[in-house]
Amino acid sequence: MLKLFYAPGTCARASHIALREADADFELQLVDFSTAEQRAPEYLGINPKGRVPALQTDAGILTETPAILTYIAQIFPTANLAPLSDPFEFARLQGFNNYLCATVHVAHAHRRRGERWADDPAAIAAMQRKTPESVAACFQLIEDHYLTTPWAMGSTYTVGDPYLFTITQWLPFHNIELTAFPKVADHHSRMLERPAVQAALDAEPARKG
Amino acid sequence: MLKLFYAPGTCARASHIALREADADFELQLVDFSTAEQRAPEYLGINPKGRVPALQTDAGILTETPAILTYIAQIFPTANLAPLSDPFEFARLQGFNNYLCATVHVAHAHRRRGERWADDPAAIAAMQRKTPESVAACFQLIEDHYLTTPWAMGSTYTVGDPYLFTITQWLPFHNIELTAFPKVADHHSRMLERPAVQAALDAEPARKG
Repeated sequence: MLKLFYAPGTCARASHIALREADADFELQLVDFSTAEQRAPEYLGINPKGRVPALQTDAGILTETPAILTYIAQIFPTANLAPLSDPFEFARLQGFNNYLCATVHVAHAHRRRGERWADDPAAIAAMQRKTPESVAACFQLIEDHYLTTPWAMGSTYTVGDPYLFTITQWLPFHNIELTAFPKVADHHSRMLERPAVQAALDAEPARKG
Repeated sequence: MLKLFYAPGTCARASHIALREADADFELQLVDFSTAEQRAPEYLGINPKGRVPALQTDAGILTETPAILTYIAQIFPTANLAPLSDPFEFARLQGFNNYLCATVHVAHAHRRRGERWADDPAAIAAMQRKTPESVAACFQLIEDHYLTTPWAMGSTYTVGDPYLFTITQWLPFHNIELTAFPKVADHHSRMLERPAVQAALDAEPARKG
């Protein structure tokens, strides 16, 4: 039985949607950020990084969204969530997910997680001020160079789609208008029509903290 | 014919080593950071992100180290550089590489690339001051929770090894002693004994700029 450790509205939503797209039998386990449960000893035993998502499997625990997404695609091959038999297309998908993880999410994280990279409150405030510019630059790159239609990687829906959707939903935190990126906006609308996406959104309680 | 766009001493070294471990037929193409070639129009046509590595293949161009590493492992399966037939072990490797990319490399990048995340020179200086702490915390986590022996993922050498090795070599930039992390230090020594690693180091000119 798979168990996804998540917090509402975080990047864990991508894995949550992917599990529903795969029609997986899984359990959702909320990690309560409002009480810093992600840094409590019990959760650090699950994921020593103190982050979500973590996916508990019969073989052990997995972390890092791109790795979890690919795992879901691989263990539910009939859901066709990744181009598993084409190394180039698979790597293109991995590259897309990796950019979301290591560049876009990181740009976003400078808004509220600046203490990871500086101690000075003025420096943390300076990081916050720049996220509208740095996050928008990432989305401009996605809009101009990476996003295709109807889905992120082309004609076939993949695990890259829930990941892009999840991070797209963070644009309002940076006062960035989704309409600035027409292809991203179309993608976001298309995602909202999917039953798996609606089911995931419905299953996550309102974000706290 | 594969062509790897790289700059000496950067994270592209991981892909460079992996190509040599796979005994791949490939060409190295230097991107000269000292003249900001990575942001010149010609290179932006290869990789719009203006970063290395980029791997040119017959099917197109790939970016992002974890994606390139997995691609190399997949197209040279006899080199046995990833557990391709075990989705859990494959995801564990992906998770390791992803942590190096999205957390460890990002912590390191705050030393000289702070302008990505703040404009204020004082904030950029504050970021620089914290990298010895934040990078060391990453390596402590690797030492305590992730690194096995003799290789990063266990008994079999994988593409996670050249990636860890590459980032380990950045510790001196943060005045972090490798001896603080005995398992990482052992891994680094073991890597230096590999012919593919020595060949890659020999092939890279001294870093400029």
